[in-house]
Amino acid sequence: MTTLHGFYRSSASFRVRIALNLKDISYDTRSYDIPSLKHQDPAYVAINPQGLLPTLAIDGYLLTQSLAIIDYLETTRPTPPLYPADSAGRARVLSLAMNIGADIHPLGVARTVRYLRNTAGLDESQSTQWQRHWIENGFTALEASLRRGSEGRFSHGDSPSVADLFIVPQVFTARRLGVHVERYPTIASIVEACLMLPAFQKALPDQQPDSQQNVP
Amino acid sequence: MTTLHGFYRSSASFRVRIALNLKDISYDTRSYDIPSLKHQDPAYVAINPQGLLPTLAIDGYLLTQSLAIIDYLETTRPTPPLYPADSAGRARVLSLAMNIGADIHPLGVARTVRYLRNTAGLDESQSTQWQRHWIENGFTALEASLRRGSEGRFSHGDSPSVADLFIVPQVFTARRLGVHVERYPTIASIVEACLMLPAFQKALPDQQPDSQQNVP
Repeated sequence: MTTLHGFYRSSASFRVRIALNLKDISYDTRSYDIPSLKHQDPAYVAINPQGLLPTLAIDGYLLTQSLAIIDYLETTRPTPPLYPADSAGRARVLSLAMNIGADIHPLGVARTVRYLRNTAGLDESQSTQWQRHWIENGFTALEASLRRGSEGRFSHGDSPSVADLFIVPQVFTARRLGVHVERYPTIASIVEACLMLPAFQKALPDQQPDSQQNVP
Repeated sequence: MTTLHGFYRSSASFRVRIALNLKDISYDTRSYDIPSLKHQDPAYVAINPQGLLPTLAIDGYLLTQSLAIIDYLETTRPTPPLYPADSAGRARVLSLAMNIGADIHPLGVARTVRYLRNTAGLDESQSTQWQRHWIENGFTALEASLRRGSEGRFSHGDSPSVADLFIVPQVFTARRLGVHVERYPTIASIVEACLMLPAFQKALPDQQPDSQQNVP
């Protein structure tokens, strides 16, 4: 059985859910509540030494890091492809994904904000400003990179790629933090195209079973 | 001609230099001094919308993001391979690389520290503590992940992989910031094995032409 250790609101778990859905892989889930630090329990750290979500248990392996998991799914279940067939296209979608995965997302995640608030002494308004800053900064560059690339409804042509798997969850986080995503029209239109697909719809945070437990 | 737009002390440029050397690709360099924000000049942002280093000009393409560049080199020049041949091995080295590329490196780079100092009001000691915190936190997990993986002199077996290309530059940064890398014996021994290879030696920051201009 394939099991996704994740959390409905975890952006990196969201990426992997989309990949699993696009490739039509059935899976069950184990949920770890990030606000109450369930992902740092020793039982989970034994599975994933980083104590980060997600981990995918598949084919007898415990895979960590969303990009590595998506790469594994791509090489073991190549249809439908999440990477362009040509080397330059692959490099383009990977670069777009890393614009988010390396240069936006890690700066705004819960553990980063926790350090800024508890150790560096920032107040809530300052830490939210920090999160917004890196999203806006990153989206400005991402918008420019998307415009100079391939035409099409998605980040790269007319089918979803790994770049879209990173963009959609980051846009959900951006909106939650009050970023005006409409200022980035290419990003906004790509998200709209993605959300037409059942694979993305089914992966949405509010569609996950563990989201129900957290409704106030 | 292949041209690397980079900087001797840029960790992401360092990764790409190692890859180019391992694959025996000759290249020339254009240097952008990060402390004086040369990489944010409009002429460079026209090349790379993120205004980040490095960019590799190769085969008529302008490639950005070190991981995407390394992937391109791998698919166009497969020998010697920088990824294991099996899917699970690929996922393992990518996960190790992302432990650094996503979860350590972006938190400690110049632009992040600049924001913490100039906007969030941290002093130099607090921002250095922040940088060390994420390196030590990430190295603790990386050490555990490396130990539970394949035996061998490098991160994955007895030849260098993309994981090593990420580890070595991060260790150089860690040492510069006063992190005691010897507390992570597997990491330290992998770096030692890497530095026996000319491809890594030639890629060292102090071996780059632009490092000479910066000697005090």
